[in-house]
Amino acid sequence: MDSANIDAVRNEVSGDTVKADVHALVALCDADMAQINAMITERMQSEVAVIPALAEHLIAAGGKRLRPLLCVAAARLCATDNINHHNLSAAVEFIHTATLLHDDVVDSSQLRRGKVAAHLIWGAPSSVLVGDFLFARAFELMVETGSLRALDILSKASAVITQGEVLQLMKAFDLNLSQADYIEIISAKTAALFSAASQSGAVAANASEDKIQALYDYGLNLGLAFQIQDDILDYQGSAADLGKNAGDDFAEGKSTLPLILVMRATQGTDASFWERTIAKREQKAGDFQHAQALMRTSGALDDARAAARAYAAKARTALAIFAPGPWRSALESLAIYSVERQT
Amino acid sequence: MDSANIDAVRNEVSGDTVKADVHALVALCDADMAQINAMITERMQSEVAVIPALAEHLIAAGGKRLRPLLCVAAARLCATDNINHHNLSAAVEFIHTATLLHDDVVDSSQLRRGKVAAHLIWGAPSSVLVGDFLFARAFELMVETGSLRALDILSKASAVITQGEVLQLMKAFDLNLSQADYIEIISAKTAALFSAASQSGAVAANASEDKIQALYDYGLNLGLAFQIQDDILDYQGSAADLGKNAGDDFAEGKSTLPLILVMRATQGTDASFWERTIAKREQKAGDFQHAQALMRTSGALDDARAAARAYAAKARTALAIFAPGPWRSALESLAIYSVERQT
Repeated sequence: MDSANIDAVRNEVSGDTVKADVHALVALCDADMAQINAMITERMQSEVAVIPALAEHLIAAGGKRLRPLLCVAAARLCATDNINHHNLSAAVEFIHTATLLHDDVVDSSQLRRGKVAAHLIWGAPSSVLVGDFLFARAFELMVETGSLRALDILSKASAVITQGEVLQLMKAFDLNLSQADYIEIISAKTAALFSAASQSGAVAANASEDKIQALYDYGLNLGLAFQIQDDILDYQGSAADLGKNAGDDFAEGKSTLPLILVMRATQGTDASFWERTIAKREQKAGDFQHAQALMRTSGALDDARAAARAYAAKARTALAIFAPGPWRSALESLAIYSVERQT
Repeated sequence: MDSANIDAVRNEVSGDTVKADVHALVALCDADMAQINAMITERMQSEVAVIPALAEHLIAAGGKRLRPLLCVAAARLCATDNINHHNLSAAVEFIHTATLLHDDVVDSSQLRRGKVAAHLIWGAPSSVLVGDFLFARAFELMVETGSLRALDILSKASAVITQGEVLQLMKAFDLNLSQADYIEIISAKTAALFSAASQSGAVAANASEDKIQALYDYGLNLGLAFQIQDDILDYQGSAADLGKNAGDDFAEGKSTLPLILVMRATQGTDASFWERTIAKREQKAGDFQHAQALMRTSGALDDARAAARAYAAKARTALAIFAPGPWRSALESLAIYSVERQT
């Protein structure tokens, strides 16, 4: 997402002087990101033409590049004296892109970042293999930094991500899913890469252990907040806003927080609706809209929003050990943005 | 494959005193492989139960464990004073298993190692994600060795493998595929991991550069010989022998050497047969048997066999810089076995 596409949203929490904003971070990272984007383009090349074509379809479509931004911000907040975070940022974006390619195959998704999903153009086999290619390239990029600790962080995160994805697949269409299950899933499938991105940025900067830990904590809580807001938007937004299909999560019976909270709140009055649409997977026209209405009236969306804001607040708190300054402020604003954004 | 299942086959090359045999290597590697197999079992565990279940389905089914054997043999031939090759061997087997899981999804294969393919039991999504998990675990294992050079070799090989897979996909059903295309494909999709396994074993042993290069050369040529023989067997064997479907390559229009050679030899007399079965993908009962017959009568299988033997000979030549001894002999016998085996 270039900055022209980003709507800064005002923080709704009264009395808080920090604005919900991602512009500040994007502006600060501009010089780093120009080099990282060039590295991303260079490293997705291959003599096998379909590989860069397919990879570029997804990568050039934009996306927020949040994970590389986090890695850069962590390294800069720790006053790095080198640019190893460039390789790590590109690697993190490749790992993320690989998981998106595989997820879209796994979920048979139609849209991604406002474009037709790659597997519908090049076929699922190519999407699977190009995902593998990007994953391998990510490790090549990491090896070049010579940082075994960054490699350790990111290889462990990669294993955790896949476990989260499988767990989500297993828990789909389960009426008894718990909020704890959900937090376990999104900690793995989303927050693990956020925390690895910010933590490895600090490692690349040779930061002290307390700063490395603080940036791990920041990334983890930011990731949780970000994913909950994503899951809220799937029941709130339209496909045009999200660049993917609103309602996908409902159709896939995905174990997200809004669904867990609304089922808990309305199991007395709407048991047969959830039994049919989620447990039996029998969905018809109007069901999604009915689920959306129940989420609003039951307070489930409000409760999910409160949970997201609590994680965003924790992310901000983690930054307290750093001296005030533009990088810390930008990361604080990002935390609020992650839960106040509408796209 | 345990040694009871391995038929040592006599080398047909007259006057050669080295036998086609894999028993000798398996026996020499026995103590190392016991620890490596324990490590493989331990590292495929996950709290998400489907992951070890799916991984074990494939890994416990056996397979020759050729790649770990190569890594062990390379380290031992170079008189290693450490056991870093255990981690690398387990990593290489995980990378191989991940590619098998993804390949079977990509090719919609029915059988693997004599068992129903994993994606038919657990679904393609789980196969894709468990492949990703094993790939991530492979990198965790490598990171633990602290050898950036081994990481470099195996991450590059991983990227090369996926490019070979994509290239093979692109070249399927192509009447004009060349022997050079084929060698490019199998160098990438098969030989790259063989060479990385043996080369990284030498690196783990802190061997001299000429020995590292020799073991790279050995692995590369062994991989080429092995894959050509595999491709020959797909037109020769039965499903029971191979543990996969004989005829799969024909059905998928895979660009293998027997197909390239037979099409070249019979394009004058059987052009319409190849046009229909390969270019147009219109295959009916009896077509595979007709293709097999043409391969025998045209000499295509004999020519493919000669090509495989030439690579096996190159693999043996690469070992000449090592002093004679049981490890060198076992690797020489493996080279001959790779092309004389019938399963």
